[in-house]
Amino acid sequence: MRLIDEHALGDITLGSTVLGSGGGGDPYVGMLLARDAIRKHGPVPLVELEEVPDDANLVFVAGMGAPGVMIEKLPRSAEYARVVPALERLTGLAFDYVCPAEAGGLNAVTPFAAAAPAGIPVVDADGMGRAFPALEMVTPTLYGGSCTPMVMVDEHGNTMYLESTSNKWSEAYGRAAALASGAQTAMALYPMTGAEAKQRLVRGAVTLAAELGATIRQARAQHASPVDAVLAKQAGVLLFTGKVEEVERRNERGWTVGKAHLSGLDSDTSSRMTLHFQNENLAAELNNKVVATSPDLIMAMELDSGEPIPVEAIRYGYRVAVIGLPSDPHWRTAAGIELAGPRRFGYDMDYCAVEDFAR
Amino acid sequence: MRLIDEHALGDITLGSTVLGSGGGGDPYVGMLLARDAIRKHGPVPLVELEEVPDDANLVFVAGMGAPGVMIEKLPRSAEYARVVPALERLTGLAFDYVCPAEAGGLNAVTPFAAAAPAGIPVVDADGMGRAFPALEMVTPTLYGGSCTPMVMVDEHGNTMYLESTSNKWSEAYGRAAALASGAQTAMALYPMTGAEAKQRLVRGAVTLAAELGATIRQARAQHASPVDAVLAKQAGVLLFTGKVEEVERRNERGWTVGKAHLSGLDSDTSSRMTLHFQNENLAAELNNKVVATSPDLIMAMELDSGEPIPVEAIRYGYRVAVIGLPSDPHWRTAAGIELAGPRRFGYDMDYCAVEDFAR
Repeated sequence: MRLIDEHALGDITLGSTVLGSGGGGDPYVGMLLARDAIRKHGPVPLVELEEVPDDANLVFVAGMGAPGVMIEKLPRSAEYARVVPALERLTGLAFDYVCPAEAGGLNAVTPFAAAAPAGIPVVDADGMGRAFPALEMVTPTLYGGSCTPMVMVDEHGNTMYLESTSNKWSEAYGRAAALASGAQTAMALYPMTGAEAKQRLVRGAVTLAAELGATIRQARAQHASPVDAVLAKQAGVLLFTGKVEEVERRNERGWTVGKAHLSGLDSDTSSRMTLHFQNENLAAELNNKVVATSPDLIMAMELDSGEPIPVEAIRYGYRVAVIGLPSDPHWRTAAGIELAGPRRFGYDMDYCAVEDFAR
Repeated sequence: MRLIDEHALGDITLGSTVLGSGGGGDPYVGMLLARDAIRKHGPVPLVELEEVPDDANLVFVAGMGAPGVMIEKLPRSAEYARVVPALERLTGLAFDYVCPAEAGGLNAVTPFAAAAPAGIPVVDADGMGRAFPALEMVTPTLYGGSCTPMVMVDEHGNTMYLESTSNKWSEAYGRAAALASGAQTAMALYPMTGAEAKQRLVRGAVTLAAELGATIRQARAQHASPVDAVLAKQAGVLLFTGKVEEVERRNERGWTVGKAHLSGLDSDTSSRMTLHFQNENLAAELNNKVVATSPDLIMAMELDSGEPIPVEAIRYGYRVAVIGLPSDPHWRTAAGIELAGPRRFGYDMDYCAVEDFAR
């Protein structure tokens, strides 16, 4: 157990941009929410998954918004304070811990905004080890874990509670409700016991985000390459170094969908990379050959600053390193690839582990 | 109190097509659901509003579907059996009665499909005295009554529970959930006490539907005009007799929106009527002058059979009588006209009481 104060949020936030794989929502917004809650209620204990008793109850906390809303209007921490008590009232359960659903992007830190007012710890784990765009794309789904009972609250004071018969139905209802709210929403979902969490979750995901953030911060301070530092830290693979030539991007059912086309730098100007994204980067092709796919992590980092570039922001002229990081072993199974591999997103590609590129 | 058996459903169903004002969903489908439940569980008591104790709890039961679904797939009575127990479990309330939200269309009889398995009576009242297309357009809204807590269940086994801060939000979330389900859904909504019901509801709405149905049935048996019989029964006004020349119809946000253009018959062929509809007929113009608007009831009845023609079915060649019936006094107030008058639906028209046409 260690205490997360507002300073500790900084590295988690920075590292969560890397784990966001180009998506997951703006971590800075999540940081503001969490900081607000920690300033009001004090630092939040972060506990290891092994410290959680088998019979304890924990629940994911995450935000989901109507598309484009976050740009106009910041979400408030008040919604996160409401969501766990609402789920407790409607289920009769008492929750001892909250946990991130995804350690990538905004939702790496939103659980702190729920934990602080409730006076309960955050578990150092998540359901992805990265970010994914749909509610059912979490490791608990691989073990038969149910997204519901879940609660979603919005800034208008509305509370939606759902009991579904599949996690795909939870995604359909949750997405529809977030759109109907026209706002940012906060959710408590995937209630599970400590024993279930130990089987189903990605261990140490919050610490991983914090370490990646510290790695980038230290590299910058030492005028070293943040890209090289991240690759060394995580057994990552440099897939490409290039310049963004063209971006095709559109909004589909609330998702940011498209491609970024890159050309090589310096001695390599004839090489071409295409990044395919749907909220997150999901596949990379080098000279028309697939070299990386989800569920592995694919990130475009700004070459000098090491700043990960979200798929909403990538545009002509950026000089980037495209890196790949291996996904958690939960994902590198037949069931994991079926749930979150390239075909799940409609790409006619087989899963391609990032390490194969290095060989 | 009287018992409603499957034979008694017939007249209610036929009369609810008139009160549907061209909308409200196919009453025949509602009848199949209710008949199925009554065959399984026995006849259902129908009680007058005055028989309900002030401290009793009652709740509206109604169905809402994804557009077009009902045409492909009939809803099942099983969903209606689930909805009241789910609301009881999630609120801790016990419901003594169910009540129709709308006596027009499908939902005039769906409450019987919930009442029969629960072994509780249906109250002879509703929240409209007709059909309207949105959840907030009910008389309880005029008195500050809340649509929530509400429950919606679908045929996939999903249960959504909502606590909202306005009835417009309930409509937004409810509509979104019905669309997400891709199916027919059943709802329990607007929980209220007996005392509140006596203030807020339209009395005798189920009996009115039954009497209108009997009126049409008897007129047909006697080879009399069903149109004349309905007008005499309800102090109605014959607005026009004509032939459908052209129909403009489109689907907007799940609503059937458009106009039907009619020309006069026989000696009156130069006259023109336009019916404006959004799921229900909402305004009638005679030679470009507004002669009737919502919340009054406007119906196109097939001239010979007296069969009310839904807005989804009206088409070139139909010979119809367009009739107007006065709406319940709840609606003929400033608040009622604001909630369900023509401007609420985007028409640049003032409310026009049907009786004014006769003068």
